[in-house]
Amino acid sequence: MIKKYDSTKLHQLVLEIYQKYGFSKTDSEKIAHTLIYTDMHGIQSHGVQRMIMYDNFIQSGKVRIDSKPEIIKETPVSAVIDAHFGLGQLNGIYSMDVAIKKAKNAGVGIVTTKKSGHYGIAGFYANMAAEQGLIGISSTNSRPAMLPTHATQSFLGTNPIGFAMPANPHNFILDFATTTVPQGKIEVYRKLEKDLPALWVAKNGDQPVNDHNDTTNLDLLRDPKSNVGLTPLGGVSEFTGSHKGFGLGMMVEIFTSILSQGDISHEIEADNLAVGPCQSFIAIDPSMFGDREQIIKRFSAYLEDIRNLPAIPGKTIYVHGDKEALNYEDAKQNGIKIDDATLAEIKAIANRLNVDADKYLN
Amino acid sequence: MIKKYDSTKLHQLVLEIYQKYGFSKTDSEKIAHTLIYTDMHGIQSHGVQRMIMYDNFIQSGKVRIDSKPEIIKETPVSAVIDAHFGLGQLNGIYSMDVAIKKAKNAGVGIVTTKKSGHYGIAGFYANMAAEQGLIGISSTNSRPAMLPTHATQSFLGTNPIGFAMPANPHNFILDFATTTVPQGKIEVYRKLEKDLPALWVAKNGDQPVNDHNDTTNLDLLRDPKSNVGLTPLGGVSEFTGSHKGFGLGMMVEIFTSILSQGDISHEIEADNLAVGPCQSFIAIDPSMFGDREQIIKRFSAYLEDIRNLPAIPGKTIYVHGDKEALNYEDAKQNGIKIDDATLAEIKAIANRLNVDADKYLN
Repeated sequence: MIKKYDSTKLHQLVLEIYQKYGFSKTDSEKIAHTLIYTDMHGIQSHGVQRMIMYDNFIQSGKVRIDSKPEIIKETPVSAVIDAHFGLGQLNGIYSMDVAIKKAKNAGVGIVTTKKSGHYGIAGFYANMAAEQGLIGISSTNSRPAMLPTHATQSFLGTNPIGFAMPANPHNFILDFATTTVPQGKIEVYRKLEKDLPALWVAKNGDQPVNDHNDTTNLDLLRDPKSNVGLTPLGGVSEFTGSHKGFGLGMMVEIFTSILSQGDISHEIEADNLAVGPCQSFIAIDPSMFGDREQIIKRFSAYLEDIRNLPAIPGKTIYVHGDKEALNYEDAKQNGIKIDDATLAEIKAIANRLNVDADKYLN
Repeated sequence: MIKKYDSTKLHQLVLEIYQKYGFSKTDSEKIAHTLIYTDMHGIQSHGVQRMIMYDNFIQSGKVRIDSKPEIIKETPVSAVIDAHFGLGQLNGIYSMDVAIKKAKNAGVGIVTTKKSGHYGIAGFYANMAAEQGLIGISSTNSRPAMLPTHATQSFLGTNPIGFAMPANPHNFILDFATTTVPQGKIEVYRKLEKDLPALWVAKNGDQPVNDHNDTTNLDLLRDPKSNVGLTPLGGVSEFTGSHKGFGLGMMVEIFTSILSQGDISHEIEADNLAVGPCQSFIAIDPSMFGDREQIIKRFSAYLEDIRNLPAIPGKTIYVHGDKEALNYEDAKQNGIKIDDATLAEIKAIANRLNVDADKYLN
């Protein structure tokens, strides 16, 4: 069952939990903010639902509570950061802040961060820049999941890209895995006992796996050397653009693992504490090119033109960020949706850390 | 029929034709180089096959022979260029040279160019940077062709992205329309009298148009206010990632028309001499992040790992740029493929300009 919970109280609960882990109040505030922001924008797969995964990482030592990200090389427009396996969200906020500062001083900031952790949604970091009037771009690599076109074994991560541009009444935010869907989407369909509606998963390179009961094959998704993987955006055939999604995944590898000289997707192993994902953070100041307000005003009018195009009967044309903004307004009024399984996981973590979860969940 | 012609002689022919139009020898060399480069890399749709289109543009005054691109705003890391409707290839080479110079001085160069023309393949400009040891990115907007997800009318251009990264034995070059296929692909299938093999064209937002004889609908592709358009990369359904291709097209609009404050795709009209496409050119120096040679060496080894993955029986795993490199070697040995229709068009242009085409075509 799914119930709704007050976002402010939930924020307090997450804050208390992370402080009990040993994170500072400031860091715990940042972590709670990113998780609650994500849930409020309707991306349940990457909000508090992920707390159990981070809990495992903290317990195993894969996430190190005392680590601080460190700039190991920089120029006025760039930085390489070694995150020393701190919590992904903290590395991400730190790194994008560095990119934003450089963009405000020099027009552009390109930051690449290695030895990081799972950092949630790429769009959050891109939007940090947009909130400051800048264009923001962020991406991350991840454990092998994507089948390169014609390959029968996954090798690239789902390698999502977040891109944000300031706009009114809300920012343009594009946030997408370079696979047809992210891992989380498969998990959601399995939980809901629904068959996969398109070629999201392929066996032996091009054979569709759609049955949600096909445990044998779907469980192999998490095994990087298996013959089951996620399809690139564009599917498995060059006729539908498979090589384009594959190429976008490669672009992400270049800006994350290749430039930072960190671990490439296929080098990331779940149980190896010495490796971790890499991320990139780019901020660009539009006022280098013209009057910022005029640029944003014209862009916002363009978005409105698109929303008002003739649509397929019964369908709405959304520009990127519209659905998230609607979800945010709803969550503010009516609370955040949490399913029973996630709730039980959070309560168990709270219980272990002597946090009274029920105080916040009513 | 398709025959092969010597690339050096063909270069000489194109050079002479463009000089006869009134372009300087230096500019004509650049134009011939981009067109022959494109054909030699196997992208026939954008090589000398386009000479008839440029001929029309020159005759109608849409391309202005005497125009020079002009930097109208700049910082150490950025420039806005007004191309004053010069030939697209010349604008592109000039603009990417500006981006490269800035990247060599400041680490990064972001250039956005307005009032330009059709500039050929995005990957050519991206690769200009890679040839200098830099990461290169280029994109262009274009006349409306892409259906935004759920819309029944095209509004964005095919908005291709070119991305290149130095590698051995040849550069990584990703070059793709953000629609499932570019316009030229539809033209090629119609010429070959082959049905479209996937959901490349949709009517009323989501109805497939596959029959190559469906002249009524396929001709509407060129009419921006019609109910027929090219599908975004990812098709027409959110289940297959339609919103991702649509979003990538939007990213291109931002870096081209929005930042340059030039004409947005839907504002470009074939017969209006006062409007033209916008382009973007980005160069980034990898040595800001670490030792360039080490980065390129590791990246090249990574590409080789991908080529060697297990593949679907009978299929080859190509990384981006591999097929183009094979085509280039073949064209050097055996010549460039040109079909009869294109040959006749080139001969007619040559004849009108008093150029002896037969001297070069034997």
